[in-house]
Amino acid sequence: MSSDYRGKFITFEGGEGVGKSTQAMELRRFLESRGVDVVLTREPGGSPGAEEIRHLLVTGGTDKWCAMTETLLHYAARAQHLEETILPALKRGAWVICDRYADSTLAYQGYGQGQNIDKILEIHRLVTGDFWPDLTILLDGGVKLGLNRARHREDLEDRQTREDRYERMGEEFHQTLRNSFLDIARKNPDRITVVDAEGGIDLIAGHIAQVICDRFFGK
Amino acid sequence: MSSDYRGKFITFEGGEGVGKSTQAMELRRFLESRGVDVVLTREPGGSPGAEEIRHLLVTGGTDKWCAMTETLLHYAARAQHLEETILPALKRGAWVICDRYADSTLAYQGYGQGQNIDKILEIHRLVTGDFWPDLTILLDGGVKLGLNRARHREDLEDRQTREDRYERMGEEFHQTLRNSFLDIARKNPDRITVVDAEGGIDLIAGHIAQVICDRFFGK
Repeated sequence: MSSDYRGKFITFEGGEGVGKSTQAMELRRFLESRGVDVVLTREPGGSPGAEEIRHLLVTGGTDKWCAMTETLLHYAARAQHLEETILPALKRGAWVICDRYADSTLAYQGYGQGQNIDKILEIHRLVTGDFWPDLTILLDGGVKLGLNRARHREDLEDRQTREDRYERMGEEFHQTLRNSFLDIARKNPDRITVVDAEGGIDLIAGHIAQVICDRFFGK
Repeated sequence: MSSDYRGKFITFEGGEGVGKSTQAMELRRFLESRGVDVVLTREPGGSPGAEEIRHLLVTGGTDKWCAMTETLLHYAARAQHLEETILPALKRGAWVICDRYADSTLAYQGYGQGQNIDKILEIHRLVTGDFWPDLTILLDGGVKLGLNRARHREDLEDRQTREDRYERMGEEFHQTLRNSFLDIARKNPDRITVVDAEGGIDLIAGHIAQVICDRFFGK
């Protein structure tokens, strides 16, 4: 928990193309309109070193890494991201909005790629001191639509820089992911709020703003 | 311990330029002359994915990573190396000679960069199932000579591919490393044999061959 810090740590989670980065930007705009100092970041990556590690994770063959290596690469990037970006921002009182965090490791590497969940949680404790967000918004939506959206986005990019390794893991894998995120949310009801991702951007943003107000602004 | 496997796992440890890769090659020659199937490998690296991670570790600024990130990158590479190279070789009965392994992480990231040693050991247990070599040869020699040798070797390489990040960490750091390796050896007397690295290649190789014979060939 980030309760030792003056700022709040809010993460977005969910499958590919579900609208996380769009809604993270919407939330930044909403919070800034209320005078909050916001740092918007993402994982894997979010700091110079962590972005180098990101490159190893989001490009190349889908079976490039064994599940343990992939878990450790995510945590190597996360340790650097916490140290360089997230914790300094929270300490100075900024709110940090992060597109993906540890729930993605649980869903992708744990439920999806078969890495033992208890081992991931143990690595999480060792590396982060059991540091979790104040609030996680899980955007839940249909897998087919999300993958189509993500692929369309990637089609606009150069083949060399295409960050589509996870998207290429197949529809069954992504259906497992959706169920995994919902299972993680059921196990963490105080931290994770599930938001229906099927609707217009403004409608979803309004729903999220309401969640934020209820949780942090007392109205 | 690798006692579940038919092959033996032998590692070389020690500071920069102390002669590890030369003596690893000498040992391979000695073992092959006795009909042993040998796999010679190194860390960080030793398998295609692990070599990609190696690149992040051995190039760039000396303060590029926080100690936890650096530890996790080494273990990410190690997990892949064990899965792809070391364990398959040991299973088929080959002997694996590895230039650096977990003792280097303890010395460099633990004693040298201040990562908590118990945390490193806990990560080691989680990632490898507490897998240690049958025998570790610690080559112990003067720091100045070693660094000069290592720098001479790097001078022969192209500046872009120069793998000198650890060498650039300064003489005091490397003196700490030497003492750290000796301390690790004192704590693991059954596994680690310290060999004086100051002498001719053949003299040192002869000493190591004697250690191997005493340990594994019963004479």
